Amino acid sequence: MTDAAKPDFPVSEYQTRLERTQRAMHDQGLDALLFTTEAEMRYFTGFRTLFWLSPTRPWFLVVPKTGKPIAVIPEIGAALMRTTWIDDVRSWSSPHEDDDGVSMLADTLRDCTKVGIPMGRESSLRMPLNDLARLHELLPGMEPVDATPLIQSLREVKSVAEVETIAEICAIASRSFANAPRLFHEGQTLKEAFRAFKIDLLREGAEDVPYLVGGADQGGYADVISPPGDKPLRAGDVLMLDTGATLRGYYCDFDRNWAFGHASDAARRAYRTLYEATDAALNIARPGATCRDLYNAMAGVIDPQGKTSGGNVGRYGHGLGMQLTESPSNIHFDMTVMKPGMVMTLEPGMEVEDGKIMVHEENLLITDGAPVLLSERAAPELPIL
Amino acid sequence: MTDAAKPDFPVSEYQTRLERTQRAMHDQGLDALLFTTEAEMRYFTGFRTLFWLSPTRPWFLVVPKTGKPIAVIPEIGAALMRTTWIDDVRSWSSPHEDDDGVSMLADTLRDCTKVGIPMGRESSLRMPLNDLARLHELLPGMEPVDATPLIQSLREVKSVAEVETIAEICAIASRSFANAPRLFHEGQTLKEAFRAFKIDLLREGAEDVPYLVGGADQGGYADVISPPGDKPLRAGDVLMLDTGATLRGYYCDFDRNWAFGHASDAARRAYRTLYEATDAALNIARPGATCRDLYNAMAGVIDPQGKTSGGNVGRYGHGLGMQLTESPSNIHFDMTVMKPGMVMTLEPGMEVEDGKIMVHEENLLITDGAPVLLSERAAPELPIL
Repeated sequence: MTDAAKPDFPVSEYQTRLERTQRAMHDQGLDALLFTTEAEMRYFTGFRTLFWLSPTRPWFLVVPKTGKPIAVIPEIGAALMRTTWIDDVRSWSSPHEDDDGVSMLADTLRDCTKVGIPMGRESSLRMPLNDLARLHELLPGMEPVDATPLIQSLREVKSVAEVETIAEICAIASRSFANAPRLFHEGQTLKEAFRAFKIDLLREGAEDVPYLVGGADQGGYADVISPPGDKPLRAGDVLMLDTGATLRGYYCDFDRNWAFGHASDAARRAYRTLYEATDAALNIARPGATCRDLYNAMAGVIDPQGKTSGGNVGRYGHGLGMQLTESPSNIHFDMTVMKPGMVMTLEPGMEVEDGKIMVHEENLLITDGAPVLLSERAAPELPIL
Repeated sequence: MTDAAKPDFPVSEYQTRLERTQRAMHDQGLDALLFTTEAEMRYFTGFRTLFWLSPTRPWFLVVPKTGKPIAVIPEIGAALMRTTWIDDVRSWSSPHEDDDGVSMLADTLRDCTKVGIPMGRESSLRMPLNDLARLHELLPGMEPVDATPLIQSLREVKSVAEVETIAEICAIASRSFANAPRLFHEGQTLKEAFRAFKIDLLREGAEDVPYLVGGADQGGYADVISPPGDKPLRAGDVLMLDTGATLRGYYCDFDRNWAFGHASDAARRAYRTLYEATDAALNIARPGATCRDLYNAMAGVIDPQGKTSGGNVGRYGHGLGMQLTESPSNIHFDMTVMKPGMVMTLEPGMEVEDGKIMVHEENLLITDGAPVLLSERAAPELPIL
């Protein structure tokens, strides 16, 4: 076992995840779960690699109703997989001319009838559709069942070890955001501001910065998903940076806003409104509250007359963990009930003035009592750099 | 139009891509193409955002047999999409309670029968399977056709503008690799070496470092896909770093090896063999050669008796561009013929001694004559730091 493969969590973490999962499978009469995606593979095995960025090879994980998960994976990953707590690693030489793991996967699922496969909201299929069709041909008796609700409700509640990891990366990002006065300045291009911030995150201890978006313009910004351009920061600009930095494969996801030199009244008011909206959600973010409750608490501050519906983002925050965004969503139709151990973002946004928006975001842990902020709370008034 | 949304390429780039595509669609009798994935969305529209990291919302692109592509996307992306050359942007408030763009997509495809959808090697489906089933219900006359060969063969041949971008990020990574003597040292943990290298890549001009893997151990390393651990680098270690850094959304993908203090004879020999294997492929990487030819040229140097089959990586390189790895693969069964404009990696690997491997990688452009190296050629002998 190489040092590189030191597991992120003790074996007990994965045993607990499996026990919770197999109890849920039993309740639903499932013979197996089949996953093709990175987060689920890692959730059950601890297998962590950036190699998923290459679309060439499919990776399969089968969770049987009893016993440990079975990895059906390309040979290139077998050595690393064997360093995890998994015993049954089946591999083939991939890419393969005409059978990229499909018959091996079919053999693994041979005795299963009801097979849970994620098919619902937020899910994707990381294998070719042709190969899924072939799997069905090889297993005519297989009855696929949507496993999305099962796996989402399990992953929504984080363990103590997961929360510690997320808290650590949130603390790292909080330190980098606090470094803003020495990182950002008028005349700097947005592209350079992004670069300076990424380097600072790495220096503060982030292992990676897979996600950094933002915007800057007079009194607000046009959108929150664009890459940075070459326009220099000017007095009166509001700069927003929103980062998903990672540690041991877990994300933080929050943003901060600053004005350069001076801020418009509209920008100050919007900032204050979003701060108060976040407060309103923090006040009720306890077990029993639903995502809809959180959404309504924020919407009630931002838009007391109920004229809009969350702006173009569509929701005011979401779950957080191994992925930048996870189920559930703080939106009017999501009736997911808060439970201790859930890690959520609160992400209210609003229009500042014509075509300019502002977004706030905090990360928090739901507990038996008041929620615990994992991000260091934003300043109550728009900070001026 | 915000500065952030300055397009990566002139409109003519996207027009040419569309014309080539629609000619191929005409030849195959296709009424439309349907894409759900980032690379294809960006290939046809120029729409570039890291927001794809969030799995919450599906994004759809329809390429009709005549006229510009049609984007069917969440409202959060509509403003940015409208800054591209695309005219027809259809959006809905996403996440949606019960119809996350599916009926809007069905309306867009209403008059199409033969619809090309990627279903083959290297493809995935970035939308819920339930929603794909619903789309088929809404469009009972739709006949899906596998569009994988069509889109892969188009994307394999890069334009001059694409090649310039890839060459630029390769030059950036070459500079960072050349900085190795001041970045890496004995006693440094592999994790710290990774961090130093990422920061250097950003300083040299990379916009992002989505991919950095590697290994270090006495005389070789155990695998090439692991995250780094906390073990300090020691004399006799061979360190390998393999990076996919990006510029304007295009990747480089190559590695370098160094020994610390001294190198074993086996490590020196393996390094030299892989260097010569790369040379053998460079000598024949011209129009008309197949991926199999490239594979055989390298295999003939590494394993003249033909005892192995490419090690656990399974191939000796691949296409390169908007994704870290793209079609085709340098493997014994891939008969793809080299054409001018293809950007490829050569990635021979071999076992150094029991359980220790070594991998080399270079990036090159296929031209009418000899190939042009985009990565600065590795030293001919294993460098000692």
